Amino acid sequence: MKTIAGGVCAAKGFTAAGIHCGVRRNKTKKDLALIYSEAPASAAAVYTANLVKGAPIAVTKAHLADGKAQAIICNSGNANTCNADGVEVAALIAKSAAQALGISENDVVVASTGVIGQPLDPTPIQKGIPELVKGLGDHSEDAALGIMTTDTRVKQIAVEFEVGGAVCRIGGICKGSGMIHPNMATMLVFITTDCAIAPPLLQKALSGDVQNTFNMLSIDGDTSTNDMAVVLANGRAGNKEITDEGGDFAVFMKALNSVTVALSRMIVADGEGATKSLECIVTGGKSEADAKKIAKSVVCSSLLKSAMFGADANWGRVLCAIGYSGAELSVDKVGVSFRSAAGEIEVCKNGAGVPFSEETAKKILLEAEIDILITLGDGEARATAWGCDLTYDYVKINGDYRT
Amino acid sequence: MKTIAGGVCAAKGFTAAGIHCGVRRNKTKKDLALIYSEAPASAAAVYTANLVKGAPIAVTKAHLADGKAQAIICNSGNANTCNADGVEVAALIAKSAAQALGISENDVVVASTGVIGQPLDPTPIQKGIPELVKGLGDHSEDAALGIMTTDTRVKQIAVEFEVGGAVCRIGGICKGSGMIHPNMATMLVFITTDCAIAPPLLQKALSGDVQNTFNMLSIDGDTSTNDMAVVLANGRAGNKEITDEGGDFAVFMKALNSVTVALSRMIVADGEGATKSLECIVTGGKSEADAKKIAKSVVCSSLLKSAMFGADANWGRVLCAIGYSGAELSVDKVGVSFRSAAGEIEVCKNGAGVPFSEETAKKILLEAEIDILITLGDGEARATAWGCDLTYDYVKINGDYRT
Repeated sequence: MKTIAGGVCAAKGFTAAGIHCGVRRNKTKKDLALIYSEAPASAAAVYTANLVKGAPIAVTKAHLADGKAQAIICNSGNANTCNADGVEVAALIAKSAAQALGISENDVVVASTGVIGQPLDPTPIQKGIPELVKGLGDHSEDAALGIMTTDTRVKQIAVEFEVGGAVCRIGGICKGSGMIHPNMATMLVFITTDCAIAPPLLQKALSGDVQNTFNMLSIDGDTSTNDMAVVLANGRAGNKEITDEGGDFAVFMKALNSVTVALSRMIVADGEGATKSLECIVTGGKSEADAKKIAKSVVCSSLLKSAMFGADANWGRVLCAIGYSGAELSVDKVGVSFRSAAGEIEVCKNGAGVPFSEETAKKILLEAEIDILITLGDGEARATAWGCDLTYDYVKINGDYRT
Repeated sequence: MKTIAGGVCAAKGFTAAGIHCGVRRNKTKKDLALIYSEAPASAAAVYTANLVKGAPIAVTKAHLADGKAQAIICNSGNANTCNADGVEVAALIAKSAAQALGISENDVVVASTGVIGQPLDPTPIQKGIPELVKGLGDHSEDAALGIMTTDTRVKQIAVEFEVGGAVCRIGGICKGSGMIHPNMATMLVFITTDCAIAPPLLQKALSGDVQNTFNMLSIDGDTSTNDMAVVLANGRAGNKEITDEGGDFAVFMKALNSVTVALSRMIVADGEGATKSLECIVTGGKSEADAKKIAKSVVCSSLLKSAMFGADANWGRVLCAIGYSGAELSVDKVGVSFRSAAGEIEVCKNGAGVPFSEETAKKILLEAEIDILITLGDGEARATAWGCDLTYDYVKINGDYRT
């Protein structure tokens, strides 16, 4: 397996486009993206667990009921959530895209992201669709730009792998960067692959994978109303279609995982206001569920996140977050180390502090990527969670997001 | 019932003191507090649910096993948590205080608050105890100062009420102001009363009350390792001892509740970095548990807290937090209004936005005390939760707390 260029256009038969159509006032920001498969594809998706759901989710769920789709259209700048006419507007957008592409509206995935509770006028989107369709090509980056909100960087990745002798590709784009705390679901992620895989297996792969990837990351503890991850698989690679959980399925799962982990890391690195990304690796847990609770509790702690911003090795806050995680553990066996490109330092052993050089710790924590290593000594289970620091800029960005 | 002066010294037979003994480097900050009852008192307590617990909690729990206590000693500047010799040190502090007071060490409540994971040297505390005991008097404020960490204001309250013809008093002090998210427990709160009440009833009153007061507030989502609320009742008011859940018990519960609600409000108003306090009042819930989940979810949302800092009426974030609260509700019946001394404004009805004046909303949200009113239209249950805004100063305070 190797990383390749192309994002969502890396897989055969997929094209994409992104434009500014006018949902956002700022004309320098793209606000509409389209991803298209030249042939109908197997499709799978997971959605937010928030009871308040964006209107596009209802429409997309209905369209994916048959496990097939051919296009994804997504606008930024407005989430189309908590609007009386939301479902109607989302359906209209899907229909307009379908007509322009000459496909069934039932094969269109529709998504929106942005501010909640402001009516979404579909006019600029409908007007922009012809230009969008005309511009379809090898433009993964434009599509990635079109779905961004407060993100500061394009997030895309693709890898190449082999299934039964056939070369396959899988790639994705996604957006962060606030209201990110996926829970039995995920944020906006669109993945394409030319690997042939039956819809039920594709859903199984995605649903299983997100438990250890997107569901294990948090920017701010707020589970979005519009979270959605979609995978389209159009079979253009020519491999024998994956229809059971054999070796080919395992290969596909591994490739999918390499894409979702890479996207997870990109999301936290570009979290709202973030200056550092955090990876909490828990080993020696009694069960995987316990290890996960602990890893996620640590990356969600406002106190620990603030300490990481200040490059302060305040490990007591790690212990505190472990203690209220709800996991079963033996506190007197807990060990904690901090690690980065500048080195690794042990700060806690058997649940108590060990003498360490504050100077060395500071040097390690001044790096942009910090690993928080936790050993539990209670068993063999492990888990990883991703997060970011809490900074002045997070407060600034969210103190007046709507203006 | 009326509010009176005196804090923890308002009730007959209670004295207090607070000094700087040297646990904290800054000599202008008091770091040791003592509360003393002239007679042994009924005692009740609740503790943090964090599995990582401060060493003083183990000692206090053992000392309160008989439902009796006569003194409370508490230092700030060091939490005595995650230290190998923690329990030994906490026991030594209790013993030193007992000797100086001429009481049984088993009747001493010991507490600590401050940084986690740094060994606590008991020497300055032991050396300070004689001065502390000598200074006992009507000094509730000094004691309140002695238990403060990042708090900027003294927190104390007292009320007078009548039980069976006898005038009783109940008062308390407490500290915030970070790592505050009580969970089946509470932060540091010390309450004294001269009302005569048997230990089991006192425990019942406290355990019941905190479910709707301290457990319903959050500063930052981090449940502390050292949370503790203690009530001492010395019976000096001369009322007939409360030994069952009759009318006198109800009167006592009401007085206790007025003290705990007042302290809860003081805690959030002085939350780390806070410029505003938030009160989320949920009505029309299917059950009390659902109403509580929603109220707490809203005051815990980093996004909503940031919006309140910016006086931005971003009600979509209220809906989002309601949606991921885990409560059962009908999203299409939800209503939201913001209220303050400057007025009240409806922003959401039947789960969707209503037109409102941004100017009026801004004026309302620029006040220091904001009520977030949520109607669910699902039943009769209600709940209130308290919180504060998320500000630059929260990040600043916690970016480098240890230096």
